[in-house]
Amino acid sequence: MRTSRKPSTSPATAFEPEFVAGLREMFERSIPFNQVLGIQLLALDGERAQCRIDMRPELVGHFIHRRLHGGVISATLDATAGLAVMAAIGARHMDESPEQRLARFMKLGTIDLRVDYLRPGLGPHFVASAEVLRLGSRVASTRMELHDAQGERVASGAAAYIVS
Amino acid sequence: MRTSRKPSTSPATAFEPEFVAGLREMFERSIPFNQVLGIQLLALDGERAQCRIDMRPELVGHFIHRRLHGGVISATLDATAGLAVMAAIGARHMDESPEQRLARFMKLGTIDLRVDYLRPGLGPHFVASAEVLRLGSRVASTRMELHDAQGERVASGAAAYIVS
Amino acid sequence: MRTSRKPSTSPATAFEPEFVAGLREMFERSIPFNQVLGIQLLALDGERAQCRIDMRPELVGHFIHRRLHGGVISATLDATAGLAVMAAIGARHMDESPEQRLARFMKLGTIDLRVDYLRPGLGPHFVASAEVLRLGSRVASTRMELHDAQGERVASGAAAYIVS
Amino acid sequence: MRTSRKPSTSPATAFEPEFVAGLREMFERSIPFNQVLGIQLLALDGERAQCRIDMRPELVGHFIHRRLHGGVISATLDATAGLAVMAAIGARHMDESPEQRLARFMKLGTIDLRVDYLRPGLGPHFVASAEVLRLGSRVASTRMELHDAQGERVASGAAAYIVS
Repeated sequence: MRTSRKPSTSPATAFEPEFVAGLREMFERSIPFNQVLGIQLLALDGERAQCRIDMRPELVGHFIHRRLHGGVISATLDATAGLAVMAAIGARHMDESPEQRLARFMKLGTIDLRVDYLRPGLGPHFVASAEVLRLGSRVASTRMELHDAQGERVASGAAAYIVS
Repeated sequence: MRTSRKPSTSPATAFEPEFVAGLREMFERSIPFNQVLGIQLLALDGERAQCRIDMRPELVGHFIHRRLHGGVISATLDATAGLAVMAAIGARHMDESPEQRLARFMKLGTIDLRVDYLRPGLGPHFVASAEVLRLGSRVASTRMELHDAQGERVASGAAAYIVS
Repeated sequence: MRTSRKPSTSPATAFEPEFVAGLREMFERSIPFNQVLGIQLLALDGERAQCRIDMRPELVGHFIHRRLHGGVISATLDATAGLAVMAAIGARHMDESPEQRLARFMKLGTIDLRVDYLRPGLGPHFVASAEVLRLGSRVASTRMELHDAQGERVASGAAAYIVS
Repeated sequence: MRTSRKPSTSPATAFEPEFVAGLREMFERSIPFNQVLGIQLLALDGERAQCRIDMRPELVGHFIHRRLHGGVISATLDATAGLAVMAAIGARHMDESPEQRLARFMKLGTIDLRVDYLRPGLGPHFVASAEVLRLGSRVASTRMELHDAQGERVASGAAAYIVS
């Protein structure tokens, strides 16, 4: 009994190094609040993105238990899902120049977001993964997860984005 | 790059035939609106459930395109997730008699539900799958999917339940 | 301390009787599963819709407590919100003929839906209300509630729709 | 046609100044990430909370349009809703000492959160409002909104919390 019964047809999209570098620069450096979170891009393909955040004192939500703040989790899942949508859009528009594809990034808008908090966020770092379930001409739907350094699932989520 | 990096530790729970039969009877026969939907239990283990619904004229939502009504999708995903939670509760209480475990079913309550509609629901039948992401002492969190007869994902969802 | 601090600028849209009659016919009669639910259109203005469903044995979810099935609630809230979006689209396109506006109804698609179940659904009938929080050129966002015959809030929800 | 047909029976709970001061101290000072967001408690009654955040360069999500980051919005709505639940719990336990009631704050846990992003978050400051729709013995359900300095609704949301 499997939840997903069809193999994901992950397009083996080979993005140019300059596209990935440009996206990383935009994502990690040009978005001020992403710098506050300290989100780093780990991996990217035509329908998925993976990011990492390191625990830091200012990201704590519970001063006794030293847990990651729920708002850090929701923000990181939203950011990672946006990146996955951007990768999917980039993969669809490989005929455009990297600059043209990067310009699409700033037009992305989150329609809505759901986060399920499953376990306390504890430990030295966290990995967020996002997958695009559907990329339409106007709306993209994604699913996300956050795991701790031991590989335990801390949170899961879903979001919808306006694309253009 | 995988979304879930840890193998799901599916407990190989062997439910007694009378427990499964009782649960099926309760689920398929005793809940009137489940009969309207025509939900059939396909498979059950300690953290997952799978159900099937057949397309019927009264389940249509769009009279031109003959698509499954979104409300049928949300109701089916909610019902299947409730069943998965029930299986997880059953697996945790194998020391109780089947009757005692079945009695817990009617105490389950949906806290909230999210459904993402990904593709039109077309075709002769649909399979709903639900997985319990976390079973706590008070709240259970689940994730669900609906696939059509070709194995295409029609919808995905998440829900939280009060357990006792 | 109020939640909404700005008066809702409800446009006093006066729909033609034939538009409202056409919408009602389509909503109550042409959508088979809406007939199963027995949804009736109560009121409609430029950004809100109100519908009613009567309790019937086949809508029950809990055979002991005779509660409304959660799936009936989610389906009714989704349907009512779709109607509110349709009214908002209709109000924006009053320059079109009623037929042209009605044709837009079948192009509406639910992107996603959240339902919060607050109290058991008990009593002879229920009223669903939906409000359009934002109608964009591509996406509409709505908020919904279900009240029982005593005026108690049974459920609340939110949904996003693709419009065109 | 009104969405909510029953007047909210807001208990005119008069919290002791030391309870409000203790809650404010805990909320604004002891939760490190709330300090990053700069959330300030504006008002509190037995079922509602209102907070404010001021726009600052590090809270920006879009470097061209200078919009508030979506993660700031979700974090602020979650925090404000948690405070409203805390107020509702406090109002229910007025027989306990302020210290005992404050101790309950750190046991609150977010089960899940939904945020609908309605308009770009622009302007000098924002006001978040949260209302407790239902406070049960185990779960609380809330609804939230964020308005900009002009009173325009920027986002709306819903969340569920474990209480004890």
